Amino acid sequence: MTEDLVSSAVDRSLRNRRSAAEVEVARLLETGRDLLGAGTNPKVGEIVKAAKVSNEAFYRYFGSKDRFVAAVVEDGCRRMVAHVEHKLSGHADPAQQLHVVIDTMLKQAGPRVGRSTRNILALSRASNGAREQVTFEETLASVFEPVLVDLGSSDPRRDARASASAVIGVLQDLLWNEQAPTTGDTDHLARFLLAAVSRPATS
Amino acid sequence: MTEDLVSSAVDRSLRNRRSAAEVEVARLLETGRDLLGAGTNPKVGEIVKAAKVSNEAFYRYFGSKDRFVAAVVEDGCRRMVAHVEHKLSGHADPAQQLHVVIDTMLKQAGPRVGRSTRNILALSRASNGAREQVTFEETLASVFEPVLVDLGSSDPRRDARASASAVIGVLQDLLWNEQAPTTGDTDHLARFLLAAVSRPATS
Repeated sequence: MTEDLVSSAVDRSLRNRRSAAEVEVARLLETGRDLLGAGTNPKVGEIVKAAKVSNEAFYRYFGSKDRFVAAVVEDGCRRMVAHVEHKLSGHADPAQQLHVVIDTMLKQAGPRVGRSTRNILALSRASNGAREQVTFEETLASVFEPVLVDLGSSDPRRDARASASAVIGVLQDLLWNEQAPTTGDTDHLARFLLAAVSRPATS
Repeated sequence: MTEDLVSSAVDRSLRNRRSAAEVEVARLLETGRDLLGAGTNPKVGEIVKAAKVSNEAFYRYFGSKDRFVAAVVEDGCRRMVAHVEHKLSGHADPAQQLHVVIDTMLKQAGPRVGRSTRNILALSRASNGAREQVTFEETLASVFEPVLVDLGSSDPRRDARASASAVIGVLQDLLWNEQAPTTGDTDHLARFLLAAVSRPATS
């Protein structure tokens, strides 16, 4: 009985500490997004002050400034995927869904968000940039996959992977050339991928 | 007359110095490829010793170890494109050329060269990784473009850009998952891109 009380007290305390930590981490990431996105390279002191978190907590959560920037990038990728999924849910026709994924992704290079994305990526010196990009592309591919199944893809896993790479490549091209996406860009990529995916089973 | 002699002496001296520098830079890059590719993280002292170049020359050419690693990566990309162009020249049929580009690129994830590529990229902490990847994709796209014109592409520039991204994305996927490419991987991507590029002008 006592043991139960003890263990539930410990559980409660850990739960509380965990949720307090989650709130602090979320606030740090949001602050990082704002400060890094503005194009400055803020010191850790400025970040923790703006996020109202202790210096000690910052290093406990992230270990280093580079790892923090990597976490901001990773968080941004996760938010992008969630945004794409949200947009997708508003459409039923798979060809339209494909268009929506492409449109939502390429808008990341739009005038305002494009600059912020460039600024954050420019500060990202995490050693595993290439690996992280692969993880992001794999996540995006998993969002693509059911849409490509509905479009009649004969190899949805591979098609989704190639499609995700094509979309992210075109997005990066726009981003680094500082070009906002046009409807021509979106429509082209949608037609390109639609034709690729709806090809006859054997050619 | 004297001035001519002086200026041609200066020219000759600069030419000689330039070609000596080119030889040293090439030797440093080759050494870098070997040492970095072997999976160690060599010190500058080891690199210059193996390349038989002075420490001072290393910093004169590259400025820092990070910039040297970035140069090794860039040089590797240039070599890969030259290799693709060489392979292309042996084929006349555009569908076969498309297959050759994909096959040559994906082989970069093959058992031996794949490990070396992974090792080099893992050490690459140059701040502009994403920008450099875009430059590489643009160069590869320019190799793709004439092939896609021959395949009847209605928008060869955009098609080439999307195709290059898809190929590099699939290559990175294989590389970081430590998988050697199968003929299934190559054939799938060739069919995918062939269908994408030979789509009807308007869909």
